[in-house]
Amino acid sequence: MEATIRIVPGFSWFGKNIGIKDGTLDFGGILSDVPCQAAGVFTRNTMPGAPVLVGREHLRDGVLQGVIVNSKNANVATGERGVEDSRKICELFAQQCGIDASSVLPSSTGVIGRRLPMDVIVRGCSTLKEDFGKTERHIETFARSIMTTDTRPKWVSAQVEGATMLGIAKGAGMIEPNMATMLCYFATDAAVSSFELQPMLERVVDKSFNRVSVDTDTSTSDTVVILANGLAGKVDLGRFEEVLSAMAVHLAKEIARDGEGATKLIELIVSGAASAEQALLTAKSIINSPLIKTAIYGADPNWGRFVMAVGKVFTYRVDIASLKILFGEGIERPMIDAETIDRDEVPLDAISEMLKRDEVHLEVILGNGQYSETVWGCDLTEGYIRENAHYTT
Amino acid sequence: MEATIRIVPGFSWFGKNIGIKDGTLDFGGILSDVPCQAAGVFTRNTMPGAPVLVGREHLRDGVLQGVIVNSKNANVATGERGVEDSRKICELFAQQCGIDASSVLPSSTGVIGRRLPMDVIVRGCSTLKEDFGKTERHIETFARSIMTTDTRPKWVSAQVEGATMLGIAKGAGMIEPNMATMLCYFATDAAVSSFELQPMLERVVDKSFNRVSVDTDTSTSDTVVILANGLAGKVDLGRFEEVLSAMAVHLAKEIARDGEGATKLIELIVSGAASAEQALLTAKSIINSPLIKTAIYGADPNWGRFVMAVGKVFTYRVDIASLKILFGEGIERPMIDAETIDRDEVPLDAISEMLKRDEVHLEVILGNGQYSETVWGCDLTEGYIRENAHYTT
Repeated sequence: MEATIRIVPGFSWFGKNIGIKDGTLDFGGILSDVPCQAAGVFTRNTMPGAPVLVGREHLRDGVLQGVIVNSKNANVATGERGVEDSRKICELFAQQCGIDASSVLPSSTGVIGRRLPMDVIVRGCSTLKEDFGKTERHIETFARSIMTTDTRPKWVSAQVEGATMLGIAKGAGMIEPNMATMLCYFATDAAVSSFELQPMLERVVDKSFNRVSVDTDTSTSDTVVILANGLAGKVDLGRFEEVLSAMAVHLAKEIARDGEGATKLIELIVSGAASAEQALLTAKSIINSPLIKTAIYGADPNWGRFVMAVGKVFTYRVDIASLKILFGEGIERPMIDAETIDRDEVPLDAISEMLKRDEVHLEVILGNGQYSETVWGCDLTEGYIRENAHYTT
Repeated sequence: MEATIRIVPGFSWFGKNIGIKDGTLDFGGILSDVPCQAAGVFTRNTMPGAPVLVGREHLRDGVLQGVIVNSKNANVATGERGVEDSRKICELFAQQCGIDASSVLPSSTGVIGRRLPMDVIVRGCSTLKEDFGKTERHIETFARSIMTTDTRPKWVSAQVEGATMLGIAKGAGMIEPNMATMLCYFATDAAVSSFELQPMLERVVDKSFNRVSVDTDTSTSDTVVILANGLAGKVDLGRFEEVLSAMAVHLAKEIARDGEGATKLIELIVSGAASAEQALLTAKSIINSPLIKTAIYGADPNWGRFVMAVGKVFTYRVDIASLKILFGEGIERPMIDAETIDRDEVPLDAISEMLKRDEVHLEVILGNGQYSETVWGCDLTEGYIRENAHYTT
């Protein structure tokens, strides 16, 4: 697995500007030469965007041949007309490229509550056939066209036996680990059926995108899909899932690292929990705490905030005497052992050093049992405030 | 009810600096001439501070005669020795003032995980008897001595028939509506028994401090107590509770208004809910959303974020067609009616005007039923980040 682009045989891509809001890239697509076995996972937000409604419908038969995405406008809270707009885009794409409209998955990302400028989009669709291409440059331009507040495109690729896998994602804000609050597209020429892909994708998403958090706000547009065109033939499914999982974790971490205003990626392990639920609730309580996120931003060794965050999971009791907090990596990493540490001799400087790194590793051991969970997040900075105080204006 | 100080007969107060961290006020107390009927509500955080443990114990018989508070250090996560420290402070207070140590409620607020500097505190207690006084200046100095990141002291007073009531609170960060994440002391000369006071205080706290949120982080030190010395005789209990409730709501709003870095108080009503739980969950989802808090900071009329926040309460379905969002106050206040509004004619300027005010009033109508809840919060600004990135350093 590498953070590079690989060309996947049989897939074409495009990205371009059609003027939805300004002159930056705002429209992109994926097209397979042949119908693909496909699977998808969508937001749990109860007010999903129109593209999510249409996408779920088009995925029902497990077959997709194309993906069409616009940024700058999420097409959410736009009523029946928004749904019609999404269907219309699929039809235009299908007509242009000679495929079935129900095999197109639409995505939109950006501001909520505005109708798509359909005149602009209709015009943008009129040259689709010529826009598509199979070069690295086409793939890169696609990855850039789906960005919103992302500061950089996100991709990862791998080889599984004779097959190639490529993943492209976007996401920086409205990110909370109740389903991948972002867009992510996997393309592969491996032959895997949608019956195998769907549960596999759910397992993979649960341990990757569902474990990442930027700001606790669950988006209305989250979509992760995988398209397998089969051109490379069958592969070992266990190996395929392993690689897909590593790719998804990589992209999830990239999303946290590129969180709005973030300067640091945080990786947190909560271990010693009595159940998986306790591990995850505690991990989320810590990774989402604004007081911890700001302390990490300032490399402030304010370890007491971890005690607070463990304690605000009201449904589980933790004996503070069994609580351990480890900062950084390596055998020498500083540790707070709440039972034995002398409060006047906490290794504050060593903790602060670990918090200064670009990747901050943390482990919290509860001493209640055998379960553990890993989650990812980022620090909270003035940049997040600046970015979000004037987003639509 | 007024936001002024009134002298409550029979109560003495002090506030002073004893050098716990620096030269600012850091030590304060309340003393009643006679034992008081008392009630208290404490944090639900499972890792409460030592003073909370000792305070709960001392309140068991419903009698208190004194309160002793230090700021700059929360005495949390300090183990058995921390509990001994809290007990020791109560004993010193009791000895000095000739009262029973088990009638003293201790509070500490500030950084977590450090032992109290007991030598400094022992010295500070040696002149307690002379420190206490009954003037307005003594009360004001007490109110200032319990402040941490507060920018101003918080008090409120009222008259109920022949009795006087005074409330003093502190709190600006680590505030989340799962119990008053702050310190608040009510003193009155009304004659009300602890059996009546305890359930009354719980009801009052539930509708005031438990409805305020600054940053979702539930403190380990939250304490609300009321001391009634009985000197003014009996009062009408219904009227007493009504006034106590108004005072608590006032102080809760003051805490949100003075939230770390906040520039605005937000008052949000969620109505039309199918149950009180749905109303409160939805209200918390909105008032705690960092994307909404930053948009209000910037007066950005990004109403789509309200749709997102309503939708991330996964346990209840809301039909978007029945969703209404109202901004500001008055008959002319702008409204988003998700069913009928033309997405291209949203009154963005009028919404932005309402969001520019010091007090931002919002109402979200779900259209599911008859229940409603009111909560208070504040905007999220660069000031919150600055304040918390380097708190201990």
